[in-house]
Amino acid sequence: MKGTLFVVSGPSGVGKTSIINSLINKLDNVVFSVSCTTRAPRPGEVDGVDYFFVSKEKFMKMIENSEFLEWAEVHGNLYGTPKKFVLENIEKGKRIILDIDVQGALQVKKNFDDAVFIFVAPPSYEVLRERLLKRGTEKTEALLKRLENAKWELSKMIEFNYLIVNDDLEKSVLVMKSIIIGESYKTTRILTEELIKNLFKGVSDR
Amino acid sequence: MKGTLFVVSGPSGVGKTSIINSLINKLDNVVFSVSCTTRAPRPGEVDGVDYFFVSKEKFMKMIENSEFLEWAEVHGNLYGTPKKFVLENIEKGKRIILDIDVQGALQVKKNFDDAVFIFVAPPSYEVLRERLLKRGTEKTEALLKRLENAKWELSKMIEFNYLIVNDDLEKSVLVMKSIIIGESYKTTRILTEELIKNLFKGVSDR
Repeated sequence: MKGTLFVVSGPSGVGKTSIINSLINKLDNVVFSVSCTTRAPRPGEVDGVDYFFVSKEKFMKMIENSEFLEWAEVHGNLYGTPKKFVLENIEKGKRIILDIDVQGALQVKKNFDDAVFIFVAPPSYEVLRERLLKRGTEKTEALLKRLENAKWELSKMIEFNYLIVNDDLEKSVLVMKSIIIGESYKTTRILTEELIKNLFKGVSDR
Repeated sequence: MKGTLFVVSGPSGVGKTSIINSLINKLDNVVFSVSCTTRAPRPGEVDGVDYFFVSKEKFMKMIENSEFLEWAEVHGNLYGTPKKFVLENIEKGKRIILDIDVQGALQVKKNFDDAVFIFVAPPSYEVLRERLLKRGTEKTEALLKRLENAKWELSKMIEFNYLIVNDDLEKSVLVMKSIIIGESYKTTRILTEELIKNLFKGVSDR
């Protein structure tokens, strides 16, 4: 059976990374998509695990060759999701999880419609604003930009297959786990030639 | 949020009823679809719980008025799935489970495409044959007819949204539970006006 790409997205501060991290020990056969970046590795970061670290020239070449499912420039550095990693793991039958912003997710949708798109929303915009304010790690300007972005992002949730309102981490983890397991049993995904052959064993030889 | 109809089907002997019965205590908000029948109640059977017991005249009238999602004659008695029960429980936000043969499921699909269709298959036709033979509760003729039916039924699995190969009851229960929870979080099902209003609270009043 082939694997599936799960694209998990939503406004920043919504808690999607916490949900995903809680999933690791609760699901088999899961890998996380590793992004490419042109920024320098930070201490402790491992090439191929945290990121694929590439030169700007290499990255531009990869864009030219359509090697990304999506890419973007953030603070002068380039970030992208390599197609090859995703396709190889789909062949291996893995469930690949891609944790990405909404704009990136919509780009992936254009290039790879067979993926499953999951939107994580806050209970309300108000709650999101409070969460981001409490974090207190950002300058006012960056924070306001994030909040402005969130409005646009929330308006895009209709483009996603599933919607999880994250009002309770434990519930959200259970729901995301259920979505991932359930999707693996879609007839279109599971019905391989091999399965059909096994199933009809005993029919032809009567 | 509105409810959803889950139609669970597959050849007889495949174990779908065992899976469903194990679900009862593992899911909230679940009801089982109650069928109409013209056969007489057996001792202990309760009207409205086991079946809705109706006269043949009433049943024929209900067919005329398109009050069934599907109906069939079995051994001279009429059986049918009443639309009203399903629609009322969808309004109440329930997850309605309908345990039904493949032909009935395909009839439901024609009348109610918004339902979720789950096919439970045996690991192989051979295993199914052995299971039915071991049961030993039937005459040879009935058994042969059941096995002949099973071939046709297996050929229809492609019409279903999900496919569970029942090679391990515990796994099958987990998968069916996941499908039911996951489907409840489809954006098209969960995104109500009320949810949108709550979500954007705090946006308009800035």
